[in-house]
Amino acid sequence: MEDTRKFVIGFDLGGTKMISALLEKETIKGRAKCTTNAQSGIDSVVDSIIQCIHKSLEKAKVTINEVLGIGIAVPGVINRKEGIVVYTPNLGFNNFNLLEILQREFQIPIILENDVNAGVYGEYSKGAARGYRHIVGIFPGTGIGGGLILDGKLYHGATGNAGEIGHMIIQNEGALCGCGQYGCLEAHASRRAMAKEAVAITSAGGAPLTLQEAGTDFKRFKSKVFANAYERGEESIKAVVKKAAYYLGIGMANCVNIFNPEVIVLGGGLVEKLGKEYVAEAEKSMRAHALPALVKDVKVVEASLGDDAIIYGAANIARDELIMKNFE
Amino acid sequence: MEDTRKFVIGFDLGGTKMISALLEKETIKGRAKCTTNAQSGIDSVVDSIIQCIHKSLEKAKVTINEVLGIGIAVPGVINRKEGIVVYTPNLGFNNFNLLEILQREFQIPIILENDVNAGVYGEYSKGAARGYRHIVGIFPGTGIGGGLILDGKLYHGATGNAGEIGHMIIQNEGALCGCGQYGCLEAHASRRAMAKEAVAITSAGGAPLTLQEAGTDFKRFKSKVFANAYERGEESIKAVVKKAAYYLGIGMANCVNIFNPEVIVLGGGLVEKLGKEYVAEAEKSMRAHALPALVKDVKVVEASLGDDAIIYGAANIARDELIMKNFE
Repeated sequence: MEDTRKFVIGFDLGGTKMISALLEKETIKGRAKCTTNAQSGIDSVVDSIIQCIHKSLEKAKVTINEVLGIGIAVPGVINRKEGIVVYTPNLGFNNFNLLEILQREFQIPIILENDVNAGVYGEYSKGAARGYRHIVGIFPGTGIGGGLILDGKLYHGATGNAGEIGHMIIQNEGALCGCGQYGCLEAHASRRAMAKEAVAITSAGGAPLTLQEAGTDFKRFKSKVFANAYERGEESIKAVVKKAAYYLGIGMANCVNIFNPEVIVLGGGLVEKLGKEYVAEAEKSMRAHALPALVKDVKVVEASLGDDAIIYGAANIARDELIMKNFE
Repeated sequence: MEDTRKFVIGFDLGGTKMISALLEKETIKGRAKCTTNAQSGIDSVVDSIIQCIHKSLEKAKVTINEVLGIGIAVPGVINRKEGIVVYTPNLGFNNFNLLEILQREFQIPIILENDVNAGVYGEYSKGAARGYRHIVGIFPGTGIGGGLILDGKLYHGATGNAGEIGHMIIQNEGALCGCGQYGCLEAHASRRAMAKEAVAITSAGGAPLTLQEAGTDFKRFKSKVFANAYERGEESIKAVVKKAAYYLGIGMANCVNIFNPEVIVLGGGLVEKLGKEYVAEAEKSMRAHALPALVKDVKVVEASLGDDAIIYGAANIARDELIMKNFE
């Protein structure tokens, strides 16, 4: 690839908004944010993606001929090799060949990546996990996503869907999960799992201040509600958070025993809002549940890039893979 | 390395016996078997290892100068880089630098490997998992060992101890495990877990034929006892086997969700003795517990090399790594 192509684009396709970021090395030179409007249909979403990428180019006054490649982070199941978005819970893609359309438009190499994988790669290439080679990323939020850096490379598995740590069963016949199983990590440690407990408590009169703040509607139990309850010391809701952190620690311990990693990166909504104490609870549980010889040197770090982890990761995956290809 | 070094040695250091096998390509040209005599102390064990290797050379009428390298499979925790046997439950090694002593004796490259890893590598390079690149090996026996081939390479993790699948917690606060935790896969699905249930049943009069065969002594409940009970249709003991297979399937499902593998290889004592029906039960449970999109193309195969998987694996790891090094 010619030297003139010194930029890459990282793209974060979210459920409500999308971000296109044009990077020169590790610096964002142009960033565009557009609404996703999933309800208008796939064609409209794809059109928005294209416009959003063009906007980021315009903002930076860069032409597509100066761009090495684009990394697109997708919130769902992909077929990486064929560039197909197999399934997205919130966007309506269904075995859709996104790669083909985008490549026709931009005529440069494009790579699809799962959004959690991209986020973990962002933390690896530029964030809290920089300098390590064996990394497990766990992102507890509404659900629980995971991503794996093994021997310094993003691990994809056979079809590009490795790292479904949230659906590891840690409690046989435990809580019902959105996936239909019982006892998945996600069913015990995600925000959804916590909200389920919390609404039962507020509706029973067990947390008057949280009742005042968030009522009894499941949807209102965002991460911030739990952070507030924790801060004001409302014990019944604190117990919900602690229990979830305890379960998260079991999932982390399992990852320690299976992957023998150097570091576990925790990120996502719950970590951002609940912070240090929550992470400390999870780490305590991890250390109590893992094999001592394997866990003793494992570090637990909080993700440092926030939402930007995904655009940095998507951009850096594209750059690293395309540069590798030129050497092959 | 000169072309004259066309042999490799695979060594299986077991708790009661050790085997040294001299291979030319994939064929064993000389095999020696010696007793381990762990009770005579480490020095005696090391001496036996050296004698056993020499014996295998003599049997094949090959000199050490014709050997490219030796792979030593060790039943325990190792520090791979430094050639140290950190800990072996049955052999009394404790931070012992085995590599140094053996290299002084033989003056050729030697590689230490965990025995389960070696077994999985054997099945990958010569056995039932040949041709795949993403493989999870699970070996239920007295305990449950695991090994990982990811992207065509044996995955070691940060310190060489990845793959402790047996200590993945699948039942929070479940059965007590030998490692001190509750609810590990091993505590629910190993032969030890089954024997614990079975002695309780025989001693309560719930399985008269098995009582006749094996009494109430935990130690007598070998895999064969379960196989016999299964064959004669003694329902209470069959239920023990089925329950263990059910749990094994949960562990397999977790591996499917985490690794997105092409194939799961099952081997070890329980698989060898209980065979097809047991494997089918485990596979049924795996398919019921994993994410459908990830499990649909996963194959389950029985290991095909038996005990020889370890010597083939140890030999092939040594060959493959030493050849790779020559290209670096």
